[in-house]
Amino acid sequence: MRQPIARFSEILALLPELPGPDLESATKAALREGQLTKPAGALGRLEEISAWMSTWQAAHPPRLNRPRVAVFAANHGIAARGVSAFPASVTQQMVQNFVSGGAAVNQLCTAFDAELRVYEMALERPTADFAVGPAMDEEECARAIAYGMMAVEPGIDLLCLGEMGIANTTSASALCVGLFGGTAADWVGPGTGVAGSALARKIEAVDVAAKLHFSEKRAPLDVLARVGGFELAAIVGAILAARLARVPVLLDGFACTVAGAVVRALDPRGLDHCQVAHLSAEPGHRRLLEKLGRTALFDFGMRLGEASGAALAIAVVRAAVACHTGMATFADAGVSGKA
Amino acid sequence: MRQPIARFSEILALLPELPGPDLESATKAALREGQLTKPAGALGRLEEISAWMSTWQAAHPPRLNRPRVAVFAANHGIAARGVSAFPASVTQQMVQNFVSGGAAVNQLCTAFDAELRVYEMALERPTADFAVGPAMDEEECARAIAYGMMAVEPGIDLLCLGEMGIANTTSASALCVGLFGGTAADWVGPGTGVAGSALARKIEAVDVAAKLHFSEKRAPLDVLARVGGFELAAIVGAILAARLARVPVLLDGFACTVAGAVVRALDPRGLDHCQVAHLSAEPGHRRLLEKLGRTALFDFGMRLGEASGAALAIAVVRAAVACHTGMATFADAGVSGKA
Repeated sequence: MRQPIARFSEILALLPELPGPDLESATKAALREGQLTKPAGALGRLEEISAWMSTWQAAHPPRLNRPRVAVFAANHGIAARGVSAFPASVTQQMVQNFVSGGAAVNQLCTAFDAELRVYEMALERPTADFAVGPAMDEEECARAIAYGMMAVEPGIDLLCLGEMGIANTTSASALCVGLFGGTAADWVGPGTGVAGSALARKIEAVDVAAKLHFSEKRAPLDVLARVGGFELAAIVGAILAARLARVPVLLDGFACTVAGAVVRALDPRGLDHCQVAHLSAEPGHRRLLEKLGRTALFDFGMRLGEASGAALAIAVVRAAVACHTGMATFADAGVSGKA
Repeated sequence: MRQPIARFSEILALLPELPGPDLESATKAALREGQLTKPAGALGRLEEISAWMSTWQAAHPPRLNRPRVAVFAANHGIAARGVSAFPASVTQQMVQNFVSGGAAVNQLCTAFDAELRVYEMALERPTADFAVGPAMDEEECARAIAYGMMAVEPGIDLLCLGEMGIANTTSASALCVGLFGGTAADWVGPGTGVAGSALARKIEAVDVAAKLHFSEKRAPLDVLARVGGFELAAIVGAILAARLARVPVLLDGFACTVAGAVVRALDPRGLDHCQVAHLSAEPGHRRLLEKLGRTALFDFGMRLGEASGAALAIAVVRAAVACHTGMATFADAGVSGKA
């Protein structure tokens, strides 16, 4: 029996296996797109999205019969420093709310016919306080990454990723410092809505962590272990597993995109099968997208997490796939082409 | 029997009847929103949209059981000047494509469970060439406005408006000059994709029309009659009828929003029950939204018309209504509030 993944070397060994874009499917998508009854390019980003789905599913036509929304929940030792507007017990309470169907992401999954999976990661055992030492050791971090890989199963056409974890924008901000540099104040924002002394504590915690962990340049998985969280490590694993299984990915807001940035740091093309669903109101997200060279699909000033923005973006992908696969061609419809 | 509307005075007589926002429903929406299991404001624009639906439906909770997409199609005399990349016959061919189910808007209506109605407006009889005289006389324009009112029926929860009419971005650009001033070059863009000599003809046509019709300031309906089109007049009527029937409206791109601007010119609050679905790639749309003080829901570089952007935005409204009506409150879910 194969041993469960417990070392970073086992994660790194997956990187050479990540498939590239499927150019045959991309070509088929481009050829069909050019024949559809509209001026060339008139569906704008919807055309890019249907081509992206084909390219990364390695299939034409692209499919969207089975979108899955995966929300990873974990607790953070740093929460004890009072960096969030909500107590750490809210992570467990919100998981119960997901299970009962009362959260925003439940309504969005129902509205857009998506399957919701909630992955609860030992909420009674938070990560260590990263202002005094590493949040996770290598084995904990590697196991969390491996756990996240389970969110990908055969038959899924699109994977939407999100998180729930009180204090995880503090962790996400520290990850940004570790990956991209800059000061705590560059990356820390209000999260669930902190201001005043709580915001000062949040900046202070990240500042202390930066000095403790990032006085020298660290490898991406080491950054993740030092200041990340179990749910963010799981998202790293889910992104990698989706790539291996040829499942396109929608990333949610700030914390989720930071996990994506870890993957991009491991492999410059590692995030090519992912789209960022929305621009979060959390100010660090805009800076992060600039670093990643990405434009989110929409900007609704959302800052909820729990995959809410990614779940909403299913509708955009559905629209793109429906137009690409269902529209008539100029020839079929007897419509005159451009003069 | 009441005579059909044939005079502008009959349209203007409707303006004092337009209902204002329903503050009781708005208050109920705000009270519920504050109790839902999320940090206050964390759903951003989705919260605004559910409140807007309640306010203009004059009902709480807001409903979205029956969205309708209405596409008005008409032909334009100005098309004979070669201002479009497509021949005028494409208007009729695309109407046939709508009926056969092959256009983008058909796929979007199917994806988002919306009813599609296509209103064909005497395609064999285009408006007059507005570079030599008024496009419509008062009776034609008033009848087209009245025709558009028929798109609103009891039981509709949301009305998405759009148009099809070869050369109608030329008409829309001329309307902008008439309503807001500026030069032809300020408002004219590529439309279906014109460039070079065709773009020069398009600018020239609007320039000639500006000198002919707008050397003096004209009343909004006079501007509409002089350089508008039947389908744009119909959208004016649909917007007014929706307000009277308490049906919120999603406007599509450039040409559709210009019709909205006519309503706003008639009554400064006349467009308050409308949202602009998307920012079109047609450059005049950005300028127009600045004039109207509006921010579109999303910017996907779409420039198709046929209500495609508005139909896609149904998903955003559905998400907003689903979250507002379906989420648990903090009390229901036993989730701790802000510390």
